[in-house]
Amino acid sequence: MKTEHPARDRPLVYLDYQAAKPVDPRVVEAMLPYFTERFANPASLHTMGDEAAEAMESARRTIAAFINARPEEIIFTSGATESNNLALVGYALRNRRKGNHIVISEMEHISIHNLAKYLEKNGFEVSRIPLDLYGRVDPAKVRARIRDDTILVSVGMASNEIGTLQPIREIGELLQGKGIAFHTDAVAAEGLLPLDVERDHLDLMSLSSNDIYGPRGLGVLYVRKGIPLTPLMIGGGQENGLRSGSENVAAIVGMSRAAEIMREEREQEVARLRTLRDRLIEGVLATVPKSFLNGHPSARLANNAHFRFTGIEGESLVLLLRDEGIQAATGSACSSKTLEPSHTLIACGLLHEEAHGSLELTLGRFTRPEDIEAALEAVPRAVRRLRQLSPLYKEEVPS
Amino acid sequence: MKTEHPARDRPLVYLDYQAAKPVDPRVVEAMLPYFTERFANPASLHTMGDEAAEAMESARRTIAAFINARPEEIIFTSGATESNNLALVGYALRNRRKGNHIVISEMEHISIHNLAKYLEKNGFEVSRIPLDLYGRVDPAKVRARIRDDTILVSVGMASNEIGTLQPIREIGELLQGKGIAFHTDAVAAEGLLPLDVERDHLDLMSLSSNDIYGPRGLGVLYVRKGIPLTPLMIGGGQENGLRSGSENVAAIVGMSRAAEIMREEREQEVARLRTLRDRLIEGVLATVPKSFLNGHPSARLANNAHFRFTGIEGESLVLLLRDEGIQAATGSACSSKTLEPSHTLIACGLLHEEAHGSLELTLGRFTRPEDIEAALEAVPRAVRRLRQLSPLYKEEVPS
Repeated sequence: MKTEHPARDRPLVYLDYQAAKPVDPRVVEAMLPYFTERFANPASLHTMGDEAAEAMESARRTIAAFINARPEEIIFTSGATESNNLALVGYALRNRRKGNHIVISEMEHISIHNLAKYLEKNGFEVSRIPLDLYGRVDPAKVRARIRDDTILVSVGMASNEIGTLQPIREIGELLQGKGIAFHTDAVAAEGLLPLDVERDHLDLMSLSSNDIYGPRGLGVLYVRKGIPLTPLMIGGGQENGLRSGSENVAAIVGMSRAAEIMREEREQEVARLRTLRDRLIEGVLATVPKSFLNGHPSARLANNAHFRFTGIEGESLVLLLRDEGIQAATGSACSSKTLEPSHTLIACGLLHEEAHGSLELTLGRFTRPEDIEAALEAVPRAVRRLRQLSPLYKEEVPS
Repeated sequence: MKTEHPARDRPLVYLDYQAAKPVDPRVVEAMLPYFTERFANPASLHTMGDEAAEAMESARRTIAAFINARPEEIIFTSGATESNNLALVGYALRNRRKGNHIVISEMEHISIHNLAKYLEKNGFEVSRIPLDLYGRVDPAKVRARIRDDTILVSVGMASNEIGTLQPIREIGELLQGKGIAFHTDAVAAEGLLPLDVERDHLDLMSLSSNDIYGPRGLGVLYVRKGIPLTPLMIGGGQENGLRSGSENVAAIVGMSRAAEIMREEREQEVARLRTLRDRLIEGVLATVPKSFLNGHPSARLANNAHFRFTGIEGESLVLLLRDEGIQAATGSACSSKTLEPSHTLIACGLLHEEAHGSLELTLGRFTRPEDIEAALEAVPRAVRRLRQLSPLYKEEVPS
């Protein structure tokens, strides 16, 4: 997406859709009446309260249909982080009597990793499934880690960093009938893959509104009927007692509109993004020596291009690209201001210095061919420049 | 506020500002660019990420100034409920070694009462300060409940139901130097009273964005420097580690604009609301026999009129007023679809049937004199009609 700004001398090229997405203007339009006119509290007994409640329940039905769930299985939260908190901590605390063993993968979003550490501190045992070179979780390894006291398995639908897709349906199938709840963080995948909680045998699924071009500050936790959770947010008892706090009706209506648009446009849009993305990957690998694609060559999100360049520091590359107007990332969105190497890349078997040399370019709804062409010009130039500045590179990789 | 709606044959009169407020159109305007253009993640390293971070930090400074705090003492949450959760549970769990006794008042919002029950289940002891007939907390009673193992006192700035103001500064003063943290839920008061964490000796204060005509789904917890909390939302470590989850920059900018407007207009607006509110109270009490004002006659929020009518069911009254286009409430916003009597009114010494006969009319920024005139016509007519239908009223209260 190119955005014009008076303080900028040229439009910026935004290739960081994994970190944040614009709200679709059609979603903003759908939300507007709910800020100023249809603003009532859905708990109120009067006409305007009923209208707010109807708008909210209609949105709940739309979002339920988007993932093949029932409306009463949709819990609105403040975002994907809260959904992950409610899924893991809410389920673990409530089901402790059944066992205290939890399985996650090494690919998970930082919030799942930090929740796992929190649960370990609180007496749970967590097994972490290792990844193959492409960042994939092998379902057989999930099966091997399951024990009698396993209560929960959480594997993300796709990596939010390297874009690798996970075999969610296969994991869901092998967990069937074992009395183990299956959770997936679908945030990285939700705008790109068709979601179906029945097909994948999911019990819990985290969604974010922004990742389908809805407003920030809203998420969903899908909770299969009969899956017991302890609420984490205590108060007025909204959302069936699972999530207190007056509901954010404007954002809920916005997310519902975003789901409708995604449902109509996803297939065509994914094909468009894949073509652009492939042009980007092929162009970079062809023009930059010692460049490599992180993640799986084909089983990856259609919008994800994740490179590493021998002898390059990812942060320096992102800052150099920034000077050229390219908005890019290294590592995961949430920790991109920390300078830790990506845990996912390390889990794929990369050395620290290799993981540090990574560049994540993610495309989205407003990415145009000229954005890709701009990146294809800027990236090789920036890599060349950084390597020229680095005596280390010349020593280590003689041409 | 009168809202036009194609399905309605006349404009509705909204007198339920306590339950929900419209977003000020000036706030919507301030938010709009952050949905579609300035949407980046403030954690991103690129230009647009920096611009988002700068917008967020500028908003944090504005909101800090609004309550006379420092920017680093402002933690953004998903709303007042989460702020209350982080204040009470986050403080109690972190400071358990210092003691396990907590003091709240009987006036508190339902979320504080439910959090107190949650803490009791987890081994804390909670004392509840009783109220006088007007719903006031006596500072001497707070002092009398303090023990060596008291770690936290939480008293709301004003009742979200009956509008009674609490002696927050006096309580803050008497807690000085005792090593006890002082929390106030300022949500009911924040658009009507000047806030100052230094004047009131506050350590923790919960705010909601919507209650100053900002967007829903955003709140603030003021945390005085040096007050240690355990985070409740675990993830990427945003907000100094106290509240994970990508920040909702558009809403944060909106709340900041709302605080600016409130700062400029509050005094004049409160005088305007008080005049309208007094006209409403005097008119109802003068025209409806056996009508009473709940809460304090003068130490009350300028927008709050809270009545009880002998022999009347509040729910029936709200529904009859609804037929006349008046949007009103009985009891507190959050539990208004439950049929429990208000805990605050019971704590003021009312009988269950008295508490059930209550009507809460709350005014706000878009309330016009004609809204008050409409209520002054509709309320006496509705009460008369309900009393005519009730043989009980005639028997119990012979004229």
